[in-house]
Amino acid sequence: MEFPLIDTVYVLEIAGTFTFAISGVSTAYDKRFDLMGVIIIAFVTAVGGGTVRDMMIGVEPVTWLTDTNIVITIAAAVVMSFFFLNSILKLKRALFLFDTIGLGLFTVLGMERAFEMGLNPLTAVIMGTVSAVFGGVIRDLLCGSIPLIFGGTIYAFNCVAGGFLYVALLSAGVAQQISMAVVVLSIITARTLAVKFNWSLPAIR
Amino acid sequence: MEFPLIDTVYVLEIAGTFTFAISGVSTAYDKRFDLMGVIIIAFVTAVGGGTVRDMMIGVEPVTWLTDTNIVITIAAAVVMSFFFLNSILKLKRALFLFDTIGLGLFTVLGMERAFEMGLNPLTAVIMGTVSAVFGGVIRDLLCGSIPLIFGGTIYAFNCVAGGFLYVALLSAGVAQQISMAVVVLSIITARTLAVKFNWSLPAIR
Amino acid sequence: MEFPLIDTVYVLEIAGTFTFAISGVSTAYDKRFDLMGVIIIAFVTAVGGGTVRDMMIGVEPVTWLTDTNIVITIAAAVVMSFFFLNSILKLKRALFLFDTIGLGLFTVLGMERAFEMGLNPLTAVIMGTVSAVFGGVIRDLLCGSIPLIFGGTIYAFNCVAGGFLYVALLSAGVAQQISMAVVVLSIITARTLAVKFNWSLPAIR
Repeated sequence: MEFPLIDTVYVLEIAGTFTFAISGVSTAYDKRFDLMGVIIIAFVTAVGGGTVRDMMIGVEPVTWLTDTNIVITIAAAVVMSFFFLNSILKLKRALFLFDTIGLGLFTVLGMERAFEMGLNPLTAVIMGTVSAVFGGVIRDLLCGSIPLIFGGTIYAFNCVAGGFLYVALLSAGVAQQISMAVVVLSIITARTLAVKFNWSLPAIR
Repeated sequence: MEFPLIDTVYVLEIAGTFTFAISGVSTAYDKRFDLMGVIIIAFVTAVGGGTVRDMMIGVEPVTWLTDTNIVITIAAAVVMSFFFLNSILKLKRALFLFDTIGLGLFTVLGMERAFEMGLNPLTAVIMGTVSAVFGGVIRDLLCGSIPLIFGGTIYAFNCVAGGFLYVALLSAGVAQQISMAVVVLSIITARTLAVKFNWSLPAIR
Repeated sequence: MEFPLIDTVYVLEIAGTFTFAISGVSTAYDKRFDLMGVIIIAFVTAVGGGTVRDMMIGVEPVTWLTDTNIVITIAAAVVMSFFFLNSILKLKRALFLFDTIGLGLFTVLGMERAFEMGLNPLTAVIMGTVSAVFGGVIRDLLCGSIPLIFGGTIYAFNCVAGGFLYVALLSAGVAQQISMAVVVLSIITARTLAVKFNWSLPAIR
C-alpha cells in the first residue's frame, strides 16, 4: 500500500507543528509566562523555522497563513497541554522528546519545500536545517536564553548530516517515502544518543 | 461627511508610525544610546512590526521602502523629540501612551493589509497582532530587555481580542471606518485599564 | 582598462562575504562555540544582512540560496581560519579589520541591489546600511551580546554617511566603479579613525 507523496509531506508538517508547539509550551511553562505568552511561544516555536524558510525562498504568504489546519493544530497542542500539564512538567524529557521529533520532521519538510522552489541540494540542506532549528532559536531569543543550537550537545549538525543523507538516498534511487522515514528516524536517534552520551562536536581550541 | 477609506487607512499608518517612533525614541533615551542608536531604535520600533508582516504576507518591497512619507514621519518624530526631550523623560507615561496608541492603530492596519492579500479572518487577526507587537519585540531584543509582550500586564491579548472584535463588527455589517474607530479605541482603553489596575492573564500554575 | 560593472558588484559580494565570514568566525572562537556553532555564526554574519535586505526588497529566493559560490566562500573562510587560528586569536584587530572591510563593501552592494529593485536614493541608503550592519546584529543577538551598532564608537553612521556620499557622487556624474571605490575606502577609513581616536556621536543628554 502506498500513500500519495503530497499527503506524506503534509502529515510531516502537521506532526512537526504539533510536536514543536508542545516543545514551545513546555518552555513557556518553565518560564512561568502567562496564557498569552504560552500561546505566543507555542506559535513561534512551531512556525518560526518554516516562516524564516518561506520568507527566504519566496513562498508568500508563508505556508501557515493560508492553512488554517496549522493554526488549529497549534491551538490544539496548547489546549491539550493544559490537561497533561503535570506530566509535561514532571517529565523533563517531554520538551526534549517533542523538540527532537520536530527536528527530524522539519529537516525533511524544509528540504522538500526548497526542492520545490528549485534550490540545489547544498542550499536545500541549509534550508532544511533552518526550518528545523530557527523556531527554537527565536523561542530562545524571546525567552532570553542562549539558543539551544549553541548548547553543547550535537544539535544542528544532526540536521545537516541528515540532510546530506537524504540527498544521498534520493540520488541512489531510494523511494522518497522510505528516504524520508530513514532520515527522520536517523536524526531522532542521533540526537537522542547525543544527549544520552553527552556527545559534542570538538570545540575549537 | 465621509472620508475615502484609503485615506483613513493611510492616516492610521502615518499616525501609528509617528507614535511608535516616539515610543522607540523614549526607550533609546532611557538606554542612553547615541544619536544613531536613537534613530535606529525609532525606525525599528516604527516599521519593525509592519516589515515582518509584509515579508510574511508577501508585500515586497515592504510598504515603507516605497513610501518616503513614512521615513520622513520617523525623522520628524526623532527631531521633535529633541525639543520635548525633558517632557518625554519626565513623563514616564509618554512611552506607555504612544506605545498604546500605536498598538491600536497597527492592529487594524495590519488586518487591513492581511485582508487585501486574501488571508482569512483568523490569520488576519494574527497578522494584525504581529504588526502591532513585533516592532516592540525587536526593539526590546536589540536593547537587551525581556520583550514587553511577556511583561506581566495584558498586552498582545488586547490586539487579539480587538482583532476578533473587528471581524465581528465587519461581519455584522458595521461601516468600516466606524469599526476601525471602535476597535482602536477599545484596544487603547483596555490596555490603559490593564496597566492602571495591573490586570494580567492567569499564569499557568 | 575597464572591468564590466556586473563583475565589480560580484567581486564586492564575494569579498564582503569572505571578510564577514572571518569576522563571524573570530567572534565564535572568542565565545568558544563548537565547530557547528562556528559555522553557523560565520554564515549568519556573512549572509544575515543581505538576507534581511533581500527579504525586505523582494529578491527571493534570497541571493545566496541560488549562488553556490557564496556558500563555498563561507566554507573556505571557515577552513582557512583553522590554519590561521592562532594569528586570528592573537590579533584582536583581525575581527575589527574584517568587519570594517565588510561594512564598506556591503553598504555599496546593498545600495546597488536596492537601485535594481527601483528604490529611491533615501531608502537605498537605508538598505545599504541594513545590508552592512544586520549580519553583525543577528550575530550579536545569537551570541547574547549587545549589538556592536550600539557599542559607543561610530559604526552604522558611517554606512549612512557613505551611502549619501555614493548618491552624491553618482548624481555628480562620477563613474560607478570610481564612486564605489571612493565610498568603500571612505567607510573603511572613517571607521578605522573612529575606533583609533574613539570618536562617538553625541549621546542625548
